[in-house]
Amino acid sequence: MLNLNKTIIVKNKKNSKIKLKEPILLVGLPGLGNVGTIVADLLIHQFKAKPLAKLYSNHFPHQVLMLKNGGLRLLNNRFYLIDNFNKKDNLIILTGDTQAITPEGQFDVNLEILNYFKNKLKGKFIFTIGGYTTMQEDLKNPKVFGNVTNTKIIDKFKKYDIVFKESRGAILGSLGLLLVFAKMQKLEGLCLMGETKYPELDPMAVKAIVSVLNKIFNITIDTKDVDKLIKSIDNSNNNIANNISIPPPFLDNKENSQPSYIR
Amino acid sequence: MLNLNKTIIVKNKKNSKIKLKEPILLVGLPGLGNVGTIVADLLIHQFKAKPLAKLYSNHFPHQVLMLKNGGLRLLNNRFYLIDNFNKKDNLIILTGDTQAITPEGQFDVNLEILNYFKNKLKGKFIFTIGGYTTMQEDLKNPKVFGNVTNTKIIDKFKKYDIVFKESRGAILGSLGLLLVFAKMQKLEGLCLMGETKYPELDPMAVKAIVSVLNKIFNITIDTKDVDKLIKSIDNSNNNIANNISIPPPFLDNKENSQPSYIR
Amino acid sequence: MLNLNKTIIVKNKKNSKIKLKEPILLVGLPGLGNVGTIVADLLIHQFKAKPLAKLYSNHFPHQVLMLKNGGLRLLNNRFYLIDNFNKKDNLIILTGDTQAITPEGQFDVNLEILNYFKNKLKGKFIFTIGGYTTMQEDLKNPKVFGNVTNTKIIDKFKKYDIVFKESRGAILGSLGLLLVFAKMQKLEGLCLMGETKYPELDPMAVKAIVSVLNKIFNITIDTKDVDKLIKSIDNSNNNIANNISIPPPFLDNKENSQPSYIR
Amino acid sequence: MLNLNKTIIVKNKKNSKIKLKEPILLVGLPGLGNVGTIVADLLIHQFKAKPLAKLYSNHFPHQVLMLKNGGLRLLNNRFYLIDNFNKKDNLIILTGDTQAITPEGQFDVNLEILNYFKNKLKGKFIFTIGGYTTMQEDLKNPKVFGNVTNTKIIDKFKKYDIVFKESRGAILGSLGLLLVFAKMQKLEGLCLMGETKYPELDPMAVKAIVSVLNKIFNITIDTKDVDKLIKSIDNSNNNIANNISIPPPFLDNKENSQPSYIR
Repeated sequence: MLNLNKTIIVKNKKNSKIKLKEPILLVGLPGLGNVGTIVADLLIHQFKAKPLAKLYSNHFPHQVLMLKNGGLRLLNNRFYLIDNFNKKDNLIILTGDTQAITPEGQFDVNLEILNYFKNKLKGKFIFTIGGYTTMQEDLKNPKVFGNVTNTKIIDKFKKYDIVFKESRGAILGSLGLLLVFAKMQKLEGLCLMGETKYPELDPMAVKAIVSVLNKIFNITIDTKDVDKLIKSIDNSNNNIANNISIPPPFLDNKENSQPSYIR
Repeated sequence: MLNLNKTIIVKNKKNSKIKLKEPILLVGLPGLGNVGTIVADLLIHQFKAKPLAKLYSNHFPHQVLMLKNGGLRLLNNRFYLIDNFNKKDNLIILTGDTQAITPEGQFDVNLEILNYFKNKLKGKFIFTIGGYTTMQEDLKNPKVFGNVTNTKIIDKFKKYDIVFKESRGAILGSLGLLLVFAKMQKLEGLCLMGETKYPELDPMAVKAIVSVLNKIFNITIDTKDVDKLIKSIDNSNNNIANNISIPPPFLDNKENSQPSYIR
Repeated sequence: MLNLNKTIIVKNKKNSKIKLKEPILLVGLPGLGNVGTIVADLLIHQFKAKPLAKLYSNHFPHQVLMLKNGGLRLLNNRFYLIDNFNKKDNLIILTGDTQAITPEGQFDVNLEILNYFKNKLKGKFIFTIGGYTTMQEDLKNPKVFGNVTNTKIIDKFKKYDIVFKESRGAILGSLGLLLVFAKMQKLEGLCLMGETKYPELDPMAVKAIVSVLNKIFNITIDTKDVDKLIKSIDNSNNNIANNISIPPPFLDNKENSQPSYIR
Repeated sequence: MLNLNKTIIVKNKKNSKIKLKEPILLVGLPGLGNVGTIVADLLIHQFKAKPLAKLYSNHFPHQVLMLKNGGLRLLNNRFYLIDNFNKKDNLIILTGDTQAITPEGQFDVNLEILNYFKNKLKGKFIFTIGGYTTMQEDLKNPKVFGNVTNTKIIDKFKKYDIVFKESRGAILGSLGLLLVFAKMQKLEGLCLMGETKYPELDPMAVKAIVSVLNKIFNITIDTKDVDKLIKSIDNSNNNIANNISIPPPFLDNKENSQPSYIR
């Protein structure tokens, strides 16, 4: 019987048997502008990612989601596998509905994630995706800011239009914690933050991140649906909240019947 | 000596010896519109339910209730048994004064409830009762929304005027957690939510739920007192809070001297 | 070495050796109107109570008090012994600076208190003292409301001008928790609540309680200083807060250099 | 592998081997006016303190700092060693980005600090540095208030322009907890609090503390940069927050790339 009085990872029986070769982890969890979750959703859909494992925690809010098919499910974080990502890499995606609320919960959940990625999946490198606000009113070409576990790897990533050494202040939750925990265990990683105007949902920041990921991995992520969302925000005289209530088609994950935006 | 530094269930010596045959659990705990607690109270009184066990938890608010008889009692959750419910089923009712406050507390308490129901009482099916707001101003015929642990059982319940697949968003507390935990342990269950206008006390939503329960179990739950409450709300020019201060007679549980509405 | 990562009771070496005969516990901890702490202070001073033990807890606020003598001390709860209380009884007083903040902390601290009183001091009966507001604007003769662990003992106390069966709602913290925990372990107790107008400091409620205690124990508690405080509040055109900043002389515990009112 | 699901101290391999002779601990952690952290920074820079150990805790906020060099680091507390402090003493400085949030976290972290200082470093005396507000509008010559673990040591420190026995009320966090825990383990200590006008950043209070430390240790701490900060605040027509965004040069710790003011 599952002991849910702690943080646990439940593996997908079939897919967790697939052999991986030093996979890369890309983390897109709820946060500023929901940049991370949308980027994760885009990748999961376009590359037909396979479910790998689910993470449950008694540190997540005590909420249950009502699904479109009439079912119910516990808030969770989900690992997916893209084994055909590019010619070189196995990519693991981590996305989810929520993050832990307390410091103790955040430490526990992120240490479990890292333990699973490092010790079970034998991974070495982590990308975390999020938003970063520069408080600019008239933001037309959002930048992508980067921070690293090890300053030696900045040179490797500078060519991909990532702005290093200009971001300041503190990062909350998995976006930062996973990387400092990784560093303490000799893994490396990069935090990519799209410059964010709308705290609720920022498709412009998503496009900026996608453009950087395309260069890093030499792929082409389809952003048609993100473009539609940007247009709908531009045309809207109402506030952004109105647009969020109509999620774009690609965010409507029928297979899992899971809502894409939990706040 | 009782260790109250955790969640514990204290059985009623006499009644916990009664033999049960795959009992059904119906859960009505405090929540939106207090729909669950009122439905539970109605059943407990009409069917002269027998006290089965009490659940105490150090995750419940640190409050003690002053009773009408001059006594005191700790906030708790209470299991009752209706062994003469209908011709077929043994019904267990779970009701109470409060729910745990933190995620960690909610996980702990609901796992204890499920463990007791599954492993001690050998139960298989759980109904949870609550409220659901559709934000409709002019709500005349409140619907009953349903969500299930397993979409295969929707067909079985559709005929009872339950609206499936239309409820959206997140459910808080036992109303949802108990069912997802049940599902993870191969039990099944149904969440019934009366469409709620008044967040404090909504007798119309209660009647809607009662009507569905009557059909499911082929019984007739007496709602005279609920009707009186509806009339008093209709006649009132004051806000709903005034009415709550005068609980209807059936809610005045003399035997236990326990107040029915704790906020 | 003291392990302060939990709730601990540190005994006074000398006084904890005094033989006690089924002592009575009287609890006056911070709460509504600070009725409990003032009553405890009055008794401690008038009867020259001996320090018996200190309770520390990592569930108390992380604060340290600056003392008049230039020292510092941790927030705590304090047990005192009055061995010459009346001809019959050994009285233990429990007072202190604070109560635990979370439900988990309150359960832990109150269970430790009860364990100490029951198992180490071999006590049988607990009085808890607090305030109770009836929301009356023009309160001239505050009543004393009572609630008991066991309704059989109401008759024994009714003659002392205690109002039973009229108090309603929930009691927070030790005032109630200690008594329900006592009841679960076959101890008995009485909660005495002075009708309170001023939530910060209510000397009228204190006098009402003192009058009841005088009758119960057949003693005469000196209330000169409480009378002065009442007069100063009556004469004041400012709000009650001004008066609190000038504690009456008897509250100025030089021996311990501890401030009497911590909020 | 580091277990970060608790409070841990990670020693600097090289410097933690340096032999110490009953070192003194000076603690400057975030708090009122940031007096403690600035004083600690001044000493660390002027005396070229050597890093000794870092303290991490799952009770600290779940935040990660973005560094000027493009790196990232976990919020922490840091021990430094000044072995050439004055002719007599080895000085340990404890400073950091944050303090624990909950009572349970504060007890845990401060007990770890004390355990490390007492049992590993064999220290005997602790100075804690902070701010104290007297609510004076026109504060020209801020005083330094003192509180001690043991009133016998007041005489020893009175000559250094420290005001004893006038500070009242409660101290939050390490500033007080470390000293009461020290006292319980037979260590001694002194809390020095600069009279504070600006809760965010108060360089005047810093200068007052520096002046006292100069006398106690017979040293001369350079305060040029603090003087500049005072002038910039005097000239400013804007509020203090504007000044904080431009930290003075000495606070720009290039070596560690750590921001000095985390709120």
